[in-house]
Amino acid sequence: MKRKKITYRSDCPISTALDIFGDKWSLLIIRDMLFKGKNTYGEFLKGGENIATNILADRLALLEAGGIISKTAHPGSKTKVLYKLTPKGIDLAPLMVEMIAWSEKYHQVHPEAIAFAKEIKKDKAAVLARFSTTPKT
Amino acid sequence: MKRKKITYRSDCPISTALDIFGDKWSLLIIRDMLFKGKNTYGEFLKGGENIATNILADRLALLEAGGIISKTAHPGSKTKVLYKLTPKGIDLAPLMVEMIAWSEKYHQVHPEAIAFAKEIKKDKAAVLARFSTTPKT
Repeated sequence: MKRKKITYRSDCPISTALDIFGDKWSLLIIRDMLFKGKNTYGEFLKGGENIATNILADRLALLEAGGIISKTAHPGSKTKVLYKLTPKGIDLAPLMVEMIAWSEKYHQVHPEAIAFAKEIKKDKAAVLARFSTTPKT
Repeated sequence: MKRKKITYRSDCPISTALDIFGDKWSLLIIRDMLFKGKNTYGEFLKGGENIATNILADRLALLEAGGIISKTAHPGSKTKVLYKLTPKGIDLAPLMVEMIAWSEKYHQVHPEAIAFAKEIKKDKAAVLARFSTTPKT
């Protein structure tokens, strides 16, 4: 696939962020990496929301172009690629955590998410520390 | 326009949230309402990112179906409709604030956004209090 280039629509920070990941599929891939530890194409395909193969390939390329994920050779397979969140990608954790808390407040979500939302309510800083890109001192 | 109905792809909280607003245009409309005080179709059209009229109408209907915005008669005009964020919509402020902070950290954004990101860094709670849906006691 040709290397993607992102065109930024304006210098608004929200618009800029959305030019990179403002698509439900992109954020579901980030979710799979951040919360479910998934890191291969095959694992993303089985994400539960039935992403189409062409959309998955497109969004992975877009996330790579936006510096959210990086690709490396898979240590266990010559045909597989390993995707990893970059520090910039991991830094989306606070945003994702807010999304979970919001969704749990207004919608019926699965029990595991309800438990996670409770943890967020109780001690958000502790939850976020698990995803922190800042080296521990 | 026919009343929209949202189909939820899974009971994952992130997927649920994205089924409602997981589209860059939807979030730009929410931004315009939350941070810029815009509340008419005409104002959203002039949002700066050149949204197409059919997309704008579609996203407004979707946001209404998702309970994010509500429509009322415009007090100043019989032909205009006034859009307002519901408490559920205003509760997206923490997510938007995280998006601004993230974007400012990694991208070149406009000076006003840099100043806002500084405020977030300094005292996020104070920034969020401006958008709070919890009645002040």
